[in-house]
Amino acid sequence: MARIVMKFGGTSMAGIERIRNVARRIKHEVDAGHQVAVVVSAMSGETDRLVNFCREASPLYDPREYDVVVASGEQVTSGLLAIALQAIGVPARSWLGWQLPIHTSDAHASARIGEIETAWLKDGEVAVIPGFQGLTEDNRISTLGRGGSDTSAVAVAAAIKADRCDIYTDVDGVYTTDPRIVPRARKLKKVTYEEMLELASVGAKVLQTRSVGLAMKEGVRVQVLSSFDEPGPNETPGTMIVGEQEIDDVERQHITGIAHDKNEAKVTLIAVPDRPGAVATIFSPLADASINVDMIVQNVAHDTGSTDVTFTVPMAELTRAIDVLERQRETIGFTKLVHDTAVTKISVVGVGMRSHAGVAAMMFKSLADRGINILAITTSEIKVSVLIHEDYTELAVRVLHTAYGLDAEDAA
Amino acid sequence: MARIVMKFGGTSMAGIERIRNVARRIKHEVDAGHQVAVVVSAMSGETDRLVNFCREASPLYDPREYDVVVASGEQVTSGLLAIALQAIGVPARSWLGWQLPIHTSDAHASARIGEIETAWLKDGEVAVIPGFQGLTEDNRISTLGRGGSDTSAVAVAAAIKADRCDIYTDVDGVYTTDPRIVPRARKLKKVTYEEMLELASVGAKVLQTRSVGLAMKEGVRVQVLSSFDEPGPNETPGTMIVGEQEIDDVERQHITGIAHDKNEAKVTLIAVPDRPGAVATIFSPLADASINVDMIVQNVAHDTGSTDVTFTVPMAELTRAIDVLERQRETIGFTKLVHDTAVTKISVVGVGMRSHAGVAAMMFKSLADRGINILAITTSEIKVSVLIHEDYTELAVRVLHTAYGLDAEDAA
Repeated sequence: MARIVMKFGGTSMAGIERIRNVARRIKHEVDAGHQVAVVVSAMSGETDRLVNFCREASPLYDPREYDVVVASGEQVTSGLLAIALQAIGVPARSWLGWQLPIHTSDAHASARIGEIETAWLKDGEVAVIPGFQGLTEDNRISTLGRGGSDTSAVAVAAAIKADRCDIYTDVDGVYTTDPRIVPRARKLKKVTYEEMLELASVGAKVLQTRSVGLAMKEGVRVQVLSSFDEPGPNETPGTMIVGEQEIDDVERQHITGIAHDKNEAKVTLIAVPDRPGAVATIFSPLADASINVDMIVQNVAHDTGSTDVTFTVPMAELTRAIDVLERQRETIGFTKLVHDTAVTKISVVGVGMRSHAGVAAMMFKSLADRGINILAITTSEIKVSVLIHEDYTELAVRVLHTAYGLDAEDAA
Repeated sequence: MARIVMKFGGTSMAGIERIRNVARRIKHEVDAGHQVAVVVSAMSGETDRLVNFCREASPLYDPREYDVVVASGEQVTSGLLAIALQAIGVPARSWLGWQLPIHTSDAHASARIGEIETAWLKDGEVAVIPGFQGLTEDNRISTLGRGGSDTSAVAVAAAIKADRCDIYTDVDGVYTTDPRIVPRARKLKKVTYEEMLELASVGAKVLQTRSVGLAMKEGVRVQVLSSFDEPGPNETPGTMIVGEQEIDDVERQHITGIAHDKNEAKVTLIAVPDRPGAVATIFSPLADASINVDMIVQNVAHDTGSTDVTFTVPMAELTRAIDVLERQRETIGFTKLVHDTAVTKISVVGVGMRSHAGVAAMMFKSLADRGINILAITTSEIKVSVLIHEDYTELAVRVLHTAYGLDAEDAA
C-alpha cells in the first residue's frame, strides 16, 4: 500500500463528465489498496471569470478580498469531486484550505505555503483538497498565485510523507524537447528536479516552477501523467521527477533535453567606459528595480578605452529596464542603448554534464556548422545556454536534439 | 447613530454594475453616521447553477458536500462587494460564515442558526457577510436552505442588537394584497410580525417565513425596501415589520390585508363511519407521514350513520396524502376519496380582528353577495380564511379588498 497524492488541473475538472472521469481514476488507485489524497484546480475558465469580476469591481482591488473571491473556484470542484467519488462507492470528504488548515504567509494573491496540519488524513477516506488556497495567520483565505495548485499538491505530499505525487496534466510527460518542433522527441522516464527546473523555466511548460523547487527541497517524488489516458494496464507511464540519487549511471551519460525560451530580450550599452566598477553602475540600479538579468557579455574593449556590454532581461521587463538605464545614462557613461527582442535562448540540459566537459564544445560546433551565430553564452552546473537570433530557433533545437543523440530512433 | 443591517438579494447582486449600486446605497447610510453590517445573497442564477452541478454529479448528493459547493456563491458576492465598497472609500471587510462564525445545527442544506459571535463588529468598517451559510460544530460549512439569506440578516441583526434590519428586495414593501390583482392595493407603512407571517405564508412572497418568525422571536425591527430606488430624500419608504406594541390604536382598527394561496388541495373522504375516534384514524397517519393538514370540515351526518370529511393539504403533498389514506381505507372505513386542486384559500388578516367579531361575518356576506361558494373555513387569532373555487380568486380578493376599506382612495 502506497500513500499517493493525485493532482488534477482545470482541464480535467471542466464539467461534471470530466469530474466523473477523475473520480474513476481515483477509484482505480483506491481499489489497488492505496491511500489517496487529491488536490484539484477550479474548472478551466472559472478562475479567469472570478479574476475579471474583481478587476471590474475595482482595478485596484484589495488582494485579501480577491483571495476570497477566486478561492471559491477550487471550493466548488472539491465538493463536486467528493460527491462524484461517493457516487461510485469511494468514501470521500472535501477539506478546504482553512479547514485543514494549509497555513500560508499573508502575502495575499501570492502566498507561500507553510505548515500543513494532517489530522484530516483518514484511512479509507479520500481527502479532496482545493489547490491554490490556504489560510493566513489572521484567519483569512489566501491564494498562492496562478498555477499554485501544483505547489499545493507537492506541499500536501510532503506533509503526509506521500510515496508519490501524481500530477495529471494535458501533456503525458516531460519530453527531451518540444515535440511540436522535433516530432522525434522522446518522453523521459525520469528527470531530476534540477533538470526539470531548467526545462520548465526555459520553456517546457509542464509544471509550475515553484512546485518543482518545493519538491526538490522536500524530496517529493513527482510523476507527470496524462489525464486523458484511461487508467489500467494499458495506461502510458508518465515522467518521474526525482532526486539525482535515483538516476543511474547509464541515464547519467545522456543529455536530458533541449529547451528554448523566446521570452528574453537583449540589451546592449554602447561605449561604456572601460574602468573598474563600471559594470556595477549598470547592474546595481537594475537589481534595485527587481529586474532579473540573465546572460551578460562584456565585449572586447575599444581602442578608445570603452567597451560594449550586452545582457538579457525578461521580455516583460524590457521597457522598465530601458527606463532605469536611461535615467542612469550619465552615471554609467554609455553613448547609446540598443535592444533586440528577436532572440531565443537555447539550453542543453543534463545532470551528466558535470562530468562531460565536451558538451559545450559540441553545442558550439553544431551551431557553427549550420551558420548559427551565438550572441551570448551562459552556463550552470547542469546546462549550457546560448542566445541566437529567433529565426534559427527550430533549426537549432533540431540540430542539437540530433547531435546529443536524443532522437527517438537513436534511443532505442 | 444607529446600528443597521442591510440585506441585498440575488437580483441586487447580479453583476458588478448592480453591486456598485449596492455599494453606493451602503455608503449613503455610512455617510449618515450609521454603523452598518451587510448580508448578501449570491448573484441571481448562481445558486441554481451550483445546485445543478451537485445534482448532475449525483442525484443522491451528500448534503455536506452540497453545502461546500453552493455556499461559494455568497462567498463570491461578499468579496466583490467589499472591493466595490473600498473603491468608493468605504472601509469594508468580508466575513464568511466560518470566519465569524455563524454557528448552526448540523442539518446540512437546511441548518438552523444558533449563536453568532460578534467580535468582527468594528467601528468604521462595514462587515460584508454572506447570507445562507454557517458553520457546524464539527467545522464544516452549512447552508440554511433556499431563501435563507433573509434569515441570516435577521439573525445577524439580533446578534449585534441592530436598531433595524433593512431587507432590499425587488418589491418596495408589503401591500394590502397582490397589486397584480388589485391595482388599488396600498403599501403598508407597518405590519406586525404575526400579520406578516400570515401574509407571507398565504401568498405575499416578500420575505422568507422563517426570517419573520426569527424577527418576532428576537424582536428585530425589519424594513422591506426596494433595491431599485436611488438612496436619498426622494426614496420611497418601505414597510416596517414590528411588534404589536408599535401599532397604534388607529392602525389597529383596520384589516391589514387580503392574501390568497393557490397552493392547497382539497381532499374529501366520502361516508366515513360517524363514531367517536373516526377522525383520529384519518389524521394520525397523515401526521405520522409529516403531511400538514390545514382546513378541516366535518359535514352533516348522513342518515346511514356516516359522514363526509373534507380537509386541505399542500398541493405538493397531495399524492403522498392519497397514498397514505388509501392504505388506511379499511381502518378509516370511507367508501371513496375525491380530491380537487382547483381551489384557492383566501385570507383576511389583521391584528384588529381580535376585537372585531364582525370581520368574519362581513367576509361571508361579501362573498355570498357575489355568489361565491365557501368550501371550508378556518380561523386564527388574526385571520379568517375560506376555501373557494379557484376561478373566483381575483373576484374574491377584489371584493374583500373593497369591503374592508383597503382600496387606495378609501385610505386617503
